[in-house]
Amino acid sequence: MKNTFGTNVLTTIFGESHGPAVGGVLDGLAPGIPVDPETIGKKLALRRPQGAISTSRVEADAFEIVSGVFNGKTTGTPLCVLIPNSNVRSGDYDAVRDLARPGHADYTGFVKYHGFADYRGGGHFSGRVTAALVALGAVAETALELRGIKIGTHISRLADIPDRAFEDLNADIAALSDRPFPVLDGVAAEKMQAAILKAKEDGDSVGGILETAVTGLPAGVGEPWFDSLESLLSHGLFSIPGVKGVEFGDGFALAGMRGSEANDAFVPANGGIATKTNRNGGINGGISNGMPLLFRCAVKPTPSISRPQQTVDLRTGEAAELAIPGRHDPAIVHRARAVCDAVTALVLCDALAGRYGADWLGGTK
Amino acid sequence: MKNTFGTNVLTTIFGESHGPAVGGVLDGLAPGIPVDPETIGKKLALRRPQGAISTSRVEADAFEIVSGVFNGKTTGTPLCVLIPNSNVRSGDYDAVRDLARPGHADYTGFVKYHGFADYRGGGHFSGRVTAALVALGAVAETALELRGIKIGTHISRLADIPDRAFEDLNADIAALSDRPFPVLDGVAAEKMQAAILKAKEDGDSVGGILETAVTGLPAGVGEPWFDSLESLLSHGLFSIPGVKGVEFGDGFALAGMRGSEANDAFVPANGGIATKTNRNGGINGGISNGMPLLFRCAVKPTPSISRPQQTVDLRTGEAAELAIPGRHDPAIVHRARAVCDAVTALVLCDALAGRYGADWLGGTK
Amino acid sequence: MKNTFGTNVLTTIFGESHGPAVGGVLDGLAPGIPVDPETIGKKLALRRPQGAISTSRVEADAFEIVSGVFNGKTTGTPLCVLIPNSNVRSGDYDAVRDLARPGHADYTGFVKYHGFADYRGGGHFSGRVTAALVALGAVAETALELRGIKIGTHISRLADIPDRAFEDLNADIAALSDRPFPVLDGVAAEKMQAAILKAKEDGDSVGGILETAVTGLPAGVGEPWFDSLESLLSHGLFSIPGVKGVEFGDGFALAGMRGSEANDAFVPANGGIATKTNRNGGINGGISNGMPLLFRCAVKPTPSISRPQQTVDLRTGEAAELAIPGRHDPAIVHRARAVCDAVTALVLCDALAGRYGADWLGGTK
Amino acid sequence: MKNTFGTNVLTTIFGESHGPAVGGVLDGLAPGIPVDPETIGKKLALRRPQGAISTSRVEADAFEIVSGVFNGKTTGTPLCVLIPNSNVRSGDYDAVRDLARPGHADYTGFVKYHGFADYRGGGHFSGRVTAALVALGAVAETALELRGIKIGTHISRLADIPDRAFEDLNADIAALSDRPFPVLDGVAAEKMQAAILKAKEDGDSVGGILETAVTGLPAGVGEPWFDSLESLLSHGLFSIPGVKGVEFGDGFALAGMRGSEANDAFVPANGGIATKTNRNGGINGGISNGMPLLFRCAVKPTPSISRPQQTVDLRTGEAAELAIPGRHDPAIVHRARAVCDAVTALVLCDALAGRYGADWLGGTK
Repeated sequence: MKNTFGTNVLTTIFGESHGPAVGGVLDGLAPGIPVDPETIGKKLALRRPQGAISTSRVEADAFEIVSGVFNGKTTGTPLCVLIPNSNVRSGDYDAVRDLARPGHADYTGFVKYHGFADYRGGGHFSGRVTAALVALGAVAETALELRGIKIGTHISRLADIPDRAFEDLNADIAALSDRPFPVLDGVAAEKMQAAILKAKEDGDSVGGILETAVTGLPAGVGEPWFDSLESLLSHGLFSIPGVKGVEFGDGFALAGMRGSEANDAFVPANGGIATKTNRNGGINGGISNGMPLLFRCAVKPTPSISRPQQTVDLRTGEAAELAIPGRHDPAIVHRARAVCDAVTALVLCDALAGRYGADWLGGTK
Repeated sequence: MKNTFGTNVLTTIFGESHGPAVGGVLDGLAPGIPVDPETIGKKLALRRPQGAISTSRVEADAFEIVSGVFNGKTTGTPLCVLIPNSNVRSGDYDAVRDLARPGHADYTGFVKYHGFADYRGGGHFSGRVTAALVALGAVAETALELRGIKIGTHISRLADIPDRAFEDLNADIAALSDRPFPVLDGVAAEKMQAAILKAKEDGDSVGGILETAVTGLPAGVGEPWFDSLESLLSHGLFSIPGVKGVEFGDGFALAGMRGSEANDAFVPANGGIATKTNRNGGINGGISNGMPLLFRCAVKPTPSISRPQQTVDLRTGEAAELAIPGRHDPAIVHRARAVCDAVTALVLCDALAGRYGADWLGGTK
Repeated sequence: MKNTFGTNVLTTIFGESHGPAVGGVLDGLAPGIPVDPETIGKKLALRRPQGAISTSRVEADAFEIVSGVFNGKTTGTPLCVLIPNSNVRSGDYDAVRDLARPGHADYTGFVKYHGFADYRGGGHFSGRVTAALVALGAVAETALELRGIKIGTHISRLADIPDRAFEDLNADIAALSDRPFPVLDGVAAEKMQAAILKAKEDGDSVGGILETAVTGLPAGVGEPWFDSLESLLSHGLFSIPGVKGVEFGDGFALAGMRGSEANDAFVPANGGIATKTNRNGGINGGISNGMPLLFRCAVKPTPSISRPQQTVDLRTGEAAELAIPGRHDPAIVHRARAVCDAVTALVLCDALAGRYGADWLGGTK
Repeated sequence: MKNTFGTNVLTTIFGESHGPAVGGVLDGLAPGIPVDPETIGKKLALRRPQGAISTSRVEADAFEIVSGVFNGKTTGTPLCVLIPNSNVRSGDYDAVRDLARPGHADYTGFVKYHGFADYRGGGHFSGRVTAALVALGAVAETALELRGIKIGTHISRLADIPDRAFEDLNADIAALSDRPFPVLDGVAAEKMQAAILKAKEDGDSVGGILETAVTGLPAGVGEPWFDSLESLLSHGLFSIPGVKGVEFGDGFALAGMRGSEANDAFVPANGGIATKTNRNGGINGGISNGMPLLFRCAVKPTPSISRPQQTVDLRTGEAAELAIPGRHDPAIVHRARAVCDAVTALVLCDALAGRYGADWLGGTK
C-alpha cells in the first residue's frame, strides 16, 4: 500500500523534504488514549540532529495535530499530525540536481516518476518524512504503555564499536528512553561519537546496528505465514531509510548453530510458560511466545557524504563527479532509533488490535 | 492478511500437515502464461526430502490444478493447486501431543487458537504447507522468465561451511536450477552434506544461509516507504518457517562500512545507468535500480531433533522431557531454497503487476 | 482484491463452471466454531436448482473440507472447502463458444483475459462459484448464531408479485431458514412460481428483489466513511452475479421523503436506546445502531434465455443470432437467497472480528 | 480500511467539522498530472452551500496542497490537501451535545468511540470531510480526462420532481460541469429549488436521487466477483453521508423485467462491439463493456432539521425533545453531486491503475 501500512491500525505518511510540511495519519487506534504534546515533542527531539555529530539542518519540529484528538485524548477517528518544514535551503541542491547521489533514491525515483518527483533534498524519499512516523509512533507507544508494553532500542554496534548487551530489559529501556545517543555503556557511547566525528572530518559517514527489545507483549500475537510478527515488523522496519538487514533473536547467528542450541527450552513460569533462553527473539512460528521481542536492524552509513563520488547526469546520461553540497549527517543510526521505536509501536498496535479488537489499546478498559 | 499475501497478484495458502491436502490459490496473474505440470513437478522435487540428508517422510507431491488453467495456459482467474497428503503417520505424535516442541509453534499456536488447532505434525504451521507456495511459485517464475527475469538461490553457508560467492549470475542461476542440493562449489557441497549427516547421527540438526540473486529486473520497481522492495520481499521471506534474518546487498556488513565504501557509484552503461559495485543489492530507496537483486536469508536449524529436550505439558503446565518421535530433517536449508525462489517470484510478480498493469506478465504482449 | 474479500475474516474463491471443482478459503474466523457438514449441506441445498422452476443441471454438491476443521470445530487456520463439478456437459457450449451471450460476461471476460479464459459455462464468472460462498457462509452463519445474530432473506418481489413485508423478524427468519422457495406468504409463493414457469414456457426469464434482515447485531459495528456497513455489505452483495441494485432501510424511497419522516426517532428501550421506526435499516453514519439490519438487492432476470438474441461473434466481430443451448434457470432469485445470506454472514463476521478481536466469534468465550 | 480506500490509488481522509482542518491524501496516482488550483477550487465551489437553498455556514474552502505537487504537476508521491475550517461556531452545539440527533451518527459514534469522539458538528462524521474527497477527486478527474474519460452527475429526482433523462451524454456532462444546481432541465431545476425552500420554511428537508454517467471508459476494467466495478463503486458511493441506495443501469427496475428485455444485445460498432441498449449500465459480469457507465444514488433528506424531534440523552439515557440549533441544509443532494463525481473518479483511477499499471493515468504516455 505504498505510503499506507497496516490492517486495523493504519499509518499513512506524506510530504517532501523541501515542501511546506511532512505529516502522517494514524487511523484505527482506539479512543481514549492520552495524547500529550510534550511526549510527542520528546520523541521528535530524539530524532532531531544533535550537535556536532549530526547535520546542521535542525528543524524545530513544531508540529500540529490536525485531527483525531479531543480533550487531550484520541477520538478513535484519524489522527493527522503535520510537521512544517522551516529550515529549508533548497538552493544547496540546484547545482547538482541532475547528478544522482550514490546510495540515494535519486536515480530510482527519477526512473519511477519519470522526472516529475520533487528532487530537492531527496523529496519524498527524504529521512525528513520519518518525523511523521515518530510523531504518530509516540501516540502508539503511549497506547502500548497503557497495556504494559514497552519498547527500547540501543545502538548495539557503530563502526565496529559494540555497546554492552541488554541486561535488565525494563531498566535498560527506561534508561534509553530519554538518552539522545542511545547507548547503554557510557564508554562505548564516547567512542562511537568520536568515530562519528572522525568520519565527519574525513568527509565520510558511518553506519551501525540498532537492537530493539519489547517487553510485556502477551503470547499469542501474530499469525502463521504471511502475517507472522517477523513479516509484519520487517515490513515496517525495512521502510526506514538506510535499513538493509533485519534479524530476530540470534538471527544470522542461528544459521550457524545446531538445533539443540538454537531451540529455546520451555519451562513453567509464574503459572504460565517461559523459555530458558530467548534465541528466537520471543517469536515461534510467527507468533509471540510471551518472552521479550528482540530484533536488530542494520543501518547503512549515511549515503550523503562530502567526498567526491563518481556518478551520472540523469538528463544527459554522461559520467560526472559529484561533491554533495548541503548539510549532512555523518551518522543517522542514533537518530534512526526513534524511528525504529515508532515503527515497532505502530506495527504492534496493529497486531494487537487485530487480535483483541479495536478497543483493546484504548483508555476504556 | 494472514494466509493471503499481495496487492495485485495474491497468494493464499491453506492446509495442515496431516489433513487431506495442502494447497494454494494464485489470483491476479495475467492470462496466457504457459502452465507446464512438469515444471511444477520439478520445483516440487527440489523441495522434497532428499535421501539420507532429509526426513524419511517423502510425499509423492502429486498435485492437482483445480482451476485457473485452460488449454495449458493461465486463464487470468484464480489458479488453485491442491497437493494431497498421502504419507501421513499421525500416530507418531499421539504420545507427545501435549508436549510443546521447543522452537516450534506448538505453544504459541496453542495459546492463539485456544487448543483447537490441529496439532498433528505441526498442523497448519508445518513446513508441508510450503509445497503449495512452491507449486504456485513455479507458475510465477514462468511468468517472470517470459519477461527475462531469472531467480536463483544457493546455500551460501551451512554449519559454517561457505559456498563460493556468486560469479557469473546467469550461469550460476542456470546451474542451480536443477541441482537438488543448491551449492555452487562441489567440494563445499560434499562438506555440507557430511555436516548434515553428522548432525543427524548426533540426533541434532543444522541451519544455514540462503543467498538469492535475481537478474533482469528493470529499474523503477518498488515503492518508497512501506512498499519498498525490501519491505515486500522480507515480508514474504520471513513467512518461510525457520527464516530469522533477511539482509539485502551487503546487509549487516554495510553497518560496519563507511559511506564512501557502501555507496555504489553510478556509471553510464549501454545507454543506461549501472552501478560499479552492488553493495545495496540492486535497491535504492526501496526501488530497483536495474542491477541484480541480491539478498540472504538466515535459516535456523530444524527445531525437530531427536535429542531429549526440556519442555512443558500444555495441558498440565508441568515440566517434562521430550524426545520427539517421527521423521525429521537434520537440515531444511536445501529444501527451503525452492520456497525462497517461489516467494521471491510471487512477490516480484505482484510488484511488477502493480507497476506495469495486470497484463504485463502474460503471454499477450 | 479480486477473488479475496475482507480485512480480518477473509474469503477467497476459485473455480470454473466446467473445471474439476469450485471452492473457497475462509481465513481468520475464530477457532472453536462447530462445523457440521449437515448444516453446510442444507445451505447448499437451498442454492441448488429446484424442480421445474430451475435448470435441469443439478449438482450433487458433495463437498470436501480440505483444511481448517479438526474434531468437528474450526481450528482458526484457513478453512478450505472444495465442491467438485460432476454434472458437466461442456459439449452444449461448443457450437456457440464465440457468440457473446447478452447480459453475460462473455464479451467483457474475453476483452479482459484476451481470450485465454475458460469460456465453458461462463467459466469463473459462472454462478456455480457461488456454491463455495454458500458453503463458507454456512460456517460464518454458525459463528454469528453463537453470538445471537441471525440472518434471513425472502423474495420481496418477483416479476411484480410482492411477498408480504417482514413482521416478527425472528419468527420470519426461522420460517425462511429451511424453505427452498423463500417467500413468507404462501399465496404469493405460488403466484411467483407460476410466473417463473410462464417465463420458462416463453423461453424467457424473470428477476426479483431479495430483502434481508439481520437481528441481534450489537450497536457500534462498522466504521465511518470507507468501511461503513453499507459500503462493506454492498461491496459483497454486488459481487453476487445478477445483483444490480442495493438499498438499505427504505433506500430509494428515502429520497422522496422529508427529513422529519426519514429520521428514526430515538427512544429509551430496555436500559438502552432503540429507534421508533427503522427507515435507515439499522445503520446510522455507517455504524450499526442496534436495530435490525434491513436491506434489499435487485436481482436481474437470468441472462441465459433460450429465445434467439442478437449478438456478435467474438472472433470475427460479425453480427450473429444466438439461441443459447444448454440448461438454464428461468429465475435465480430464489437460489440467490442462499448466496445473499452467505455474503452477509461473511461480511458481518469480518466487521465483528475487526471490532471485537479475532476470538469474539469463537467457541471459547 | 476505515478512512483509507483503494488498492493501487489510495485515498485517505481525516478531520473533524470543528477541528482546525479537514484533509486527505491521494497516493499512487501517476506522476505528471497537471494540478490546477483553479480546477480544485471550482469543484469545491460546487460542493459549497449555495444561497437560500443551503446552510448559511459557508466555508471559504481555501485549501493548501501540502505535498505531492511540484512545478504544477503530480510527483507520483502522496498528494496531501488540507482545507482549514474557518467558519466554526461550536457554541451552537453545546446545549444539545448529549442529545443524539435522529438520522445522524451521534448515537452510533458515541457507542463505538465510548464518548471520546469530537461531538461538535458531527465531528469526523460531518459532511464537511467530503470537501477533502472533492479536492482529491478533482485531481483524479483531471487524470481521467487525460485519457478521454468524463464524469457527470445530475439530480434525476428531488422531492418527486424528475429531471429529464440523460440524452447526449457528453454534451450533458459538459453542461453539468459548472452548474451549481446540477439539473439538465431548467424548469425542473426551478421546481426543485422551490421544493427545497418550501421544506426549509417547514423546518424540514428533502432528499433526492443522483444519476451519474461516465463516458470513455474502455472495456475490460474491473474484476469478477469481489472487485466488480459495481462492488468497488458502491463501496465508495455508500461512503458518502446520506447515500442509502445504489443501482447500476436500470437497477431495481431490472428486477421487474424479463431476460429478453433486460439483456443488452451486442452489435458490431466501429470495428468493435457495442450494446444496442444499456440497461446494465456499461457493466457485464463486473467488468466494463465499453458503453457508458450509468448509476444512481439515493440520497436521504438531510437529517438536521429544525423541527422538534424525539430523542434520548446519551449520558442519562432519558427521553428528550430536540430542536437542533445551528445552520442546516434543507437539501444536500445538489452538493453531494460533487462528492459523487469525486468518489467515482477516485474509484476509477484505482481500477485503471490496477488494470494498466501505475503510469497509465499520467502525463508521460
